[in-house]
Amino acid sequence: MNIEAQAKPSVELDIPFLRARRNVKWHRYADDVLPAWVAEMDFAVAAPIRAALDRIAREQDYGYPHRDGDRADASLAHAFVRRMQSRFGWQTDAADTLAIADLVQGTFATVLAFSDPGDTVILQMPSYPPFQTAVNETGRVLQEDHMRDDGGHYVLDLAALDAATGPRARVLLFCHPHNPTGRAFSRAELEAVGRFAIKHDLVIMSDEIHADLVYAGHTHIPMASISPAIAARTVTMTSATKGYNIPGLRCGVMHFGSPELKARFTKRIPPKLLGSPGITGIDATVAAWDDGQPWCDEVLALLQANRDWLARAIAAEFPQAVMRLPEATYLAWIDFSRLNLPDTAGTFFLERAKVALSPGENFGARYGNFSRLNFATSPAILEQIIGRMAAAVRALK
Amino acid sequence: MNIEAQAKPSVELDIPFLRARRNVKWHRYADDVLPAWVAEMDFAVAAPIRAALDRIAREQDYGYPHRDGDRADASLAHAFVRRMQSRFGWQTDAADTLAIADLVQGTFATVLAFSDPGDTVILQMPSYPPFQTAVNETGRVLQEDHMRDDGGHYVLDLAALDAATGPRARVLLFCHPHNPTGRAFSRAELEAVGRFAIKHDLVIMSDEIHADLVYAGHTHIPMASISPAIAARTVTMTSATKGYNIPGLRCGVMHFGSPELKARFTKRIPPKLLGSPGITGIDATVAAWDDGQPWCDEVLALLQANRDWLARAIAAEFPQAVMRLPEATYLAWIDFSRLNLPDTAGTFFLERAKVALSPGENFGARYGNFSRLNFATSPAILEQIIGRMAAAVRALK
Repeated sequence: MNIEAQAKPSVELDIPFLRARRNVKWHRYADDVLPAWVAEMDFAVAAPIRAALDRIAREQDYGYPHRDGDRADASLAHAFVRRMQSRFGWQTDAADTLAIADLVQGTFATVLAFSDPGDTVILQMPSYPPFQTAVNETGRVLQEDHMRDDGGHYVLDLAALDAATGPRARVLLFCHPHNPTGRAFSRAELEAVGRFAIKHDLVIMSDEIHADLVYAGHTHIPMASISPAIAARTVTMTSATKGYNIPGLRCGVMHFGSPELKARFTKRIPPKLLGSPGITGIDATVAAWDDGQPWCDEVLALLQANRDWLARAIAAEFPQAVMRLPEATYLAWIDFSRLNLPDTAGTFFLERAKVALSPGENFGARYGNFSRLNFATSPAILEQIIGRMAAAVRALK
Repeated sequence: MNIEAQAKPSVELDIPFLRARRNVKWHRYADDVLPAWVAEMDFAVAAPIRAALDRIAREQDYGYPHRDGDRADASLAHAFVRRMQSRFGWQTDAADTLAIADLVQGTFATVLAFSDPGDTVILQMPSYPPFQTAVNETGRVLQEDHMRDDGGHYVLDLAALDAATGPRARVLLFCHPHNPTGRAFSRAELEAVGRFAIKHDLVIMSDEIHADLVYAGHTHIPMASISPAIAARTVTMTSATKGYNIPGLRCGVMHFGSPELKARFTKRIPPKLLGSPGITGIDATVAAWDDGQPWCDEVLALLQANRDWLARAIAAEFPQAVMRLPEATYLAWIDFSRLNLPDTAGTFFLERAKVALSPGENFGARYGNFSRLNFATSPAILEQIIGRMAAAVRALK
């Protein structure tokens, strides 16, 4: 079974080139392991980003940066405003933003700014592991809200959440599009989340880092664009590092849905405590947001073909496994429970298939039979990954 | 008067190349202004740094970084340990460090971690402006301790400081080598500072970012290397961005002189709140510290010739001005008080000489008649700077 024939995309890279890179994806595990874990893509970087970085190198332009008559972080803020308008029709103000290195930093800062030790922070589960860390390491109480598989896709269980939420709840950590389930939440779902947050007077942290990676038939709607009442309690975090595959450059944006919300934040967290992104991160981000969409379109087409092939392959090779089609992200959240594997799914496939998936238990203690599979690689490598996994399962019988 | 004849150093760059860079130094002011303000150098970047950055670009290696079998921030910590040992004979432990973006971030973090609102933070004056901001913006009380010109150089006035220090003093912000006076403090001076800190139970933040730039006849002695008792209360901050002229890449290290001191810090400031440097900053720093010394030696020779020429030129052109010979840094702190200029020195030279110095008042309200002159440029440009300044003063008569 081959992935749908198409011209080989210009972004594809072969394994020797990928292994030459000094990244965790290809080097955390032994060389006989194929990596499908950490959320980065095995693709060439967009030409406008490469051009921006080449210019810096050519001019040895590593001094205190100046862009468009202002500090470099202002150029980042203005690029954010342009991008949110052009891509999502969301109007923002550069003055409502802060630059951050990465979204983990932004999560810690949001939790520290809008809650006190002993307060409750609500988290949609399964979840990106650092969100859990940000709650536990700051002495807050984690309230897990588990999404439910409704037979077609994963949905929020707001009725259960509402019943479980007490008076010390302060912050809702929300991820949209959702990692690891791949959901791109609908307007109705976002409105319901907003009503819940208003009812319980919560600050919503909306991690929208996957917003560039939404498939045909779905649309990314920024949480803060739903209504002014929701915006006034929403901290949006985003970055070009996910959609454009430059996480090592460390650059992101926090947006506060009202000046008052930003003032509450900066009273506790002085912006200079957050540091500032390096100029390579800023210039790469501006290039991605202003000029990177054609690259992103090409990548999305490749990812969608991979996704569709993967869904068919999972159904064919592992009919007892459950994979709901991701509406966004290049991550497939797969439930292997009914295969009755002799170990957690992540350990089983790592040891028996030499495929490194993200172990489900990292996304919540109850998910040991799940794994997250990163399909942002060439069709050839993806076929090898599934081939190895299928052979390991067949060998059990 | 020409600067001592020597072969043109390979690091020199001409004005068109410098103006093509998009940095604040050459673009904050109009094109008819020569910049001698912000602390960055008009020199080519060291070859090992360029090679490290070229490799990243060539391999498009912008993913989550992996270095030497570990996370990239571990490679930064180990490079710090090697550098402190090889350059200053100071033995440190990688586990006692944290990566930061820049020293302003580190200063805010130190003030927030080791004092409460209303507590007193002591600052050696004149001082790098962001230190003052870090005290004022966090609701702490600034206690200024002004250095004294003893006729030969600027010295600490610890007797006055001791008398002025009350029970709410918590942190001493110390800068060593000192910006803007260029002092490289002696062991005896550092011991006296340490005794003072112990007596008043202060945490010392020792900004040692200029430690790479110490001239013949002087030695950099890390504050925390003086004694275990001093180390146990000292947070050292450093970075290759100053000595190797790559501030736009944002990468530095905080070192805690004991595990207990680090534990006190991280209890208040979770390390992930600080974010993490981008991979360009980390790889450039490792290259600088491991392989950059020959470049630094060449630059220091050039800077020392510039410094000596500048001292003679100031004495010849402005006999009433006072410039104490910097023992470190490429910054000259010049007292123009007795010239009775018609404006603050910074404004006067900017408007009448078209030379941008760092205005003295930024380093403390009483220093309006001072300016800080950055002499890290080519001898030809430095001669133009002094020529313009001298002409502006002559025109007053």
